[in-house]
Amino acid sequence: MSTLPDVFTDPEDSQLVADAKKDKPEDHEFSYTERDVILYNLGIGATAKDLQWTYESHEEFAALPTFGVIPQFAASSGISLGWLPNFNPAKLLHGEQYLAIRSPIPTEGNFVNETRLLEVLDKGKAASVTTIVYTKDIATGNVIFENQITVFIRGAGGFGGKRSGRDRGAATAVNIPPKRQPDAVIEEKTSASQAALYRLSGDYNPLHIDPSFAAIGGFDQPILHGLCFMGIAGKHVLQSFGAYKDIKVRFSGVVFPGETLVTEMWKTGSKVIFSTKTKERGTTVLAAAAVTLIDTDMMAKL
Amino acid sequence: MSTLPDVFTDPEDSQLVADAKKDKPEDHEFSYTERDVILYNLGIGATAKDLQWTYESHEEFAALPTFGVIPQFAASSGISLGWLPNFNPAKLLHGEQYLAIRSPIPTEGNFVNETRLLEVLDKGKAASVTTIVYTKDIATGNVIFENQITVFIRGAGGFGGKRSGRDRGAATAVNIPPKRQPDAVIEEKTSASQAALYRLSGDYNPLHIDPSFAAIGGFDQPILHGLCFMGIAGKHVLQSFGAYKDIKVRFSGVVFPGETLVTEMWKTGSKVIFSTKTKERGTTVLAAAAVTLIDTDMMAKL
Repeated sequence: MSTLPDVFTDPEDSQLVADAKKDKPEDHEFSYTERDVILYNLGIGATAKDLQWTYESHEEFAALPTFGVIPQFAASSGISLGWLPNFNPAKLLHGEQYLAIRSPIPTEGNFVNETRLLEVLDKGKAASVTTIVYTKDIATGNVIFENQITVFIRGAGGFGGKRSGRDRGAATAVNIPPKRQPDAVIEEKTSASQAALYRLSGDYNPLHIDPSFAAIGGFDQPILHGLCFMGIAGKHVLQSFGAYKDIKVRFSGVVFPGETLVTEMWKTGSKVIFSTKTKERGTTVLAAAAVTLIDTDMMAKL
Repeated sequence: MSTLPDVFTDPEDSQLVADAKKDKPEDHEFSYTERDVILYNLGIGATAKDLQWTYESHEEFAALPTFGVIPQFAASSGISLGWLPNFNPAKLLHGEQYLAIRSPIPTEGNFVNETRLLEVLDKGKAASVTTIVYTKDIATGNVIFENQITVFIRGAGGFGGKRSGRDRGAATAVNIPPKRQPDAVIEEKTSASQAALYRLSGDYNPLHIDPSFAAIGGFDQPILHGLCFMGIAGKHVLQSFGAYKDIKVRFSGVVFPGETLVTEMWKTGSKVIFSTKTKERGTTVLAAAAVTLIDTDMMAKL
């Protein structure tokens, strides 16, 4: 039963950050059923043709791998950032997400999330805060998912301490696409109600459905959840190259529900580097992104 | 606190039917949240543009009225019909549905369903069985919904007793459209995954998602739930003529997910008679259908 340390100490941390890291968040439980799995899969564009993702009695019924961001969502988004100077939640941006799938994903479960501050960077004008969450199956104690979530808070920098982070392997890799045509491309039109459906998986932020909230954020219309289009792109990679053990993305642009996503993929060794853009506006919305494929030969030997 | 009688006796019933009616089903509880309401509304085609149906913080957030068929679904579909001669569940067809909305629909609730056999008819080759369900709010005891569900079981007739039923007002009205152009028409294309989404509201019958089950039923592909397209048509009536206190339909044809529904409506006094067909095949799928509009003047006086 692997467990996160109580504190991720770092000698370069300022006192403010060192103190904040000591504030260990409470563990957070999350239970789900097959219905929640289907709802998530539909929320990231699975269809009635994809019976393995939408029909609980299909012999290969499964959660799409990016379901791993769901059980930890309330835990990581509930972490306190009020200790940052000039903290304003309206100035928070979801920067990056790393998800490792450590064990097969049950189609229903009772999980518990352990959450810690992993790294806090002072970027001058902004703060960069990375949270780590272990999501464990309560019955077995097995870690099912590890998430590392990086948010940027504009206007909350200048508190002293580290400016740049440690190399954390796949979680921080820059994943620059090779200079050649992609090995695979998948296009998918999202539904105008994609966000209305996706939010039922747990992120009820009105930014994604209420035009008046979207306007406050500076958008003409509600925007799709970043973790929703990460899931759609993750589905494209799965459909093109098979199962993976981790996925990492940088959120580099917004998507409006109804837009078409285009995911370009390059296989480089055990990795698939990918990039997702909107067809209508040509904006890159997922960058510095990759998965690490499961070595199926090695899996067979275990 | 109004309550159904233990038995709906009828002097014309045969002994078989009289005995079956005495078998009082257990009350059945059903709880739901705002999330379930949104999921139902999306399942019958509400969109991100319909914030009152898809956004829990909208000031007029509400369940669409046909949500009333959901809390009773497991209760009424679980009723035993094994006492019928030659009963075969594969030969059961959902014939008619009547729903009365007796009290405002809470956006979350804990309900209890009382279910009884209301009427059993021997149609010779088939049996016609009507079940009545009162759905009550546990906290207040108020009846929120009354449902009357009629199923036909082919091959299960010939047991003696009544051949034709009693007049039960709006629940049995034939609702013949007037011979003039409809007063309103709404067209709506369903999604290819409409049934995959709708089933999460509680009807997991594989007929609606699994092609191999659909084939056993004699269909080229899975068919949409009757109560789903009843809900879509009920939404059309609501959008065209406002709130109603009851709705009754006869299921007269099948709908394949992805087809376009066309609802034609005629206002006749306090009723709106309607008829729904598929645009692609021209088949009438809801017939003998009507709602009784709420008299808003009278409501204001109460």
